[in-house]
Formats: sequence, C-alpha cells, structure tokens
Amino acid sequence: MAAHPYSPASLDLPGYVPQRLSQLEILGPYLGTSLFVLLAVWLLSGRCSRLSKVDRLLMCWWAFTGLTHLVVEGSFVFTPDFFSKENPSYFDEAMKEYSKGDSRYVGRDTATVTLEAITVLLEGPGSLLAVYAIASQKSYSHILQFTVCLGQLYGCIVYFSTAYLDGFNFWASPFYFWAYFVGANSSWVVIPLLIARRSWKKICAAIHQTEKVKTK
Amino acid sequence: MAAHPYSPASLDLPGYVPQRLSQLEILGPYLGTSLFVLLAVWLLSGRCSRLSKVDRLLMCWWAFTGLTHLVVEGSFVFTPDFFSKENPSYFDEAMKEYSKGDSRYVGRDTATVTLEAITVLLEGPGSLLAVYAIASQKSYSHILQFTVCLGQLYGCIVYFSTAYLDGFNFWASPFYFWAYFVGANSSWVVIPLLIARRSWKKICAAIHQTEKVKTK
Repeated sequence: MAAHPYSPASLDLPGYVPQRLSQLEILGPYLGTSLFVLLAVWLLSGRCSRLSKVDRLLMCWWAFTGLTHLVVEGSFVFTPDFFSKENPSYFDEAMKEYSKGDSRYVGRDTATVTLEAITVLLEGPGSLLAVYAIASQKSYSHILQFTVCLGQLYGCIVYFSTAYLDGFNFWASPFYFWAYFVGANSSWVVIPLLIARRSWKKICAAIHQTEKVKTK
Repeated sequence: MAAHPYSPASLDLPGYVPQRLSQLEILGPYLGTSLFVLLAVWLLSGRCSRLSKVDRLLMCWWAFTGLTHLVVEGSFVFTPDFFSKENPSYFDEAMKEYSKGDSRYVGRDTATVTLEAITVLLEGPGSLLAVYAIASQKSYSHILQFTVCLGQLYGCIVYFSTAYLDGFNFWASPFYFWAYFVGANSSWVVIPLLIARRSWKKICAAIHQTEKVKTK
C-alpha cells in the first residue's frame, strides 16, 4: 500500500509525487534565510537608539516567526495538493520533509489544517505587527505580543494533544519524532512562554502603578 | 444501523443507552442553577462597596462560565462512556441532549475532546480565579480575564472550523443546529470578545500612563 515514506503505512496518498530535494537542500535555505532575517532586523533595529537590546531581540523573533507563519505555513494551508504536484515548489518539498515528523500534514488532518490556518491568518500578521509595535513603542505592544504568544501556545497544546489522542504514530522514525515533531516545535513553546511571562509582568506593573496614582 | 438520534446516521455508538430525561428536564435544572449562581454572586458582590456594577456583572459571568466549564464540561471530559452507562447521571443525559446539536460529543471526536479538556483544565480554574481577582482588585485581574477570553475564543474558532472541515453534518435537525451548535455557543463568542476588548483598552491605557510618567 505505502508508496510513501510516511507513518502509518496505511495512510492513503493518491498521486503522491516522491520528494526530490534532500533534507540539506530543504533545511539549508530555511536556516540561511532565517539567519539573514534575524541579522537584518537586529542591524536595522540598532539604528533606533531608544530600543533596548531585549526589544531588538524580540523584534528579530517576531520577524522570523511572522515570516515562517505567513510564508512556510501559509504555503501549506493554501496548497492542499502539495504532495501530488508534478512540479513541486521548494515549500511543497519542505512540507513533504516535515511530514516525516508528522504525517498529519501530508494527510491533511482536519485539526492540523485548522490550527495552521489560524496560525497563518491571525498569528502571522500579528507577529509582523508586533515588530512594528515594538519599533514604534506603541502602548498596545505588550498586550499584542501576549495575544500572539497565547495563540501559539494554545495551538501547540491542541497540536500535541490531538497527536496523542489520535494514536501518536505519525513519525517515520524516532529521529523524525525528536528532530521535527518535538525539536522544531519546541521553540514555539519555550519562546512564547518566556515572552508571555514578560508581558504579563509588565502589564501587571503598569496596572499596579495606575491604581496607586488613582488612590493617591 | 443508527439506533440513536444523532447525525450522521452512520455514526457507530456501541452500547448506546437511549436518553431518559426530556429536553425540559435537562435545560430546566441547568438554567435554574445558572440563574441562582448569577443572582448569588450579584447579591454577594453588592456587599463589597468598592466594586463597580460592571465588575459585579463580570464576576457573575466568570462564576457562571467557570462552573459550566468545570462541572458540565468536566463531567463530559472525564466520562468517556457517558452514552453507554446503564445508570446515567444528569450530566450524562445533558451531553446526550447536547450531542443532538453536535454528534462529535457523543462520538468523542479527538479535536472536540481536546478542546473540552483544555477548557476544563485551564479556562475553568482561570474563570473562578477571575471572580476572586475582580473581587480583590488584583493588578493581574485584566490580563487574567483577557487570557481566559482568548482561550475561549481560540477554542470556539477551532470548534467551528473543524466542524466545517469535517463535513458540517453533526446536528439532528436545523432546530438543533441553531439552538445548540450556534445558539448555546454564541455566548462564548460574544461575551469573551466584549470582555477581551475592554481588558485590552484598560491595559493599553495603563501602559500609556506609565510611559508618560517615565518620560516626564
């Protein structure tokens, strides 16, 4: 049955076109472009003297995660036939590679597609807006970052929980389980947790201060 | 095949025990208890002179939604065999009734169970904490309410989107579609939207004020 490298073997992928790019040919450009984005935002934000180093690091993260959501995940959401295209794009190939860590992508599982659609449509623009909000020190900067972080965290909880409840057998090997399913997603658990905690504290401090002013 | 009142008829429910309580016998106690909770919180909170009427209304809502999450939805999450129990409890019967509006409950669809589990474990305690936070005017009151609202809204988006992508045929009749699937859930879209908007504004105003103080 399985003319594909994914797990479970019973997964039916009519018209599956085998992956042509190697893991290196897929990860190389993604990591290279990401490094370029991080470096560019870091250098550009340095010209803005009012910004702290933490703010500049946050801008780098939000630019990177926003572009990943919009471009990489956007391509997945809007290309339902990516695994059967005769002339696959780089992004189609990237999704075939990632599916070795979670075949619900290539199988277009409903919950997974829903989570990705929300990520692309809401968290993607929200992340890029956060870059702008930090740069221009908007008063909504913290609550916006907090909102996007909560969206990413809620998405991760649903993502991991549905994988668990649906059988926990979507990776081609332990390597892909740890590298893709756990490893690639862990940044979107740890970093949003840290940012959400920071924004929560800043917001509570600001509210506390205004309450004090009021009661004076 | 279908020895049950749910849609689609192909849904397999081994050992299904028919519902004994009528719609009135299920809705009556729920609405009665809810009214009692709302009234009790309203009256009790009135003894606290510092609280505005909006704060008191918010406490009523958070108590009601917290108890609904923990008791009604909690019973669903922790009773996987509710539809086949020989001696069903009131809550088992309530879930059989609600499943006429969305058979993914009685069918224990993965995404639905995941969303409910998150709602019970996180939003339930969060809602009750919000009652306490408003009553004691904690500085984290707004960001906590905002967090729980975002969780409820994210849950609703996933809930409705997965229903749509999975075929949109989970209700026994148009009446149940409008009354249960749309009607019963609409409060958890509209009210969280209103509260989240209010908290967002309060937080931005507080941040704005502290920024002003800093630059003075």
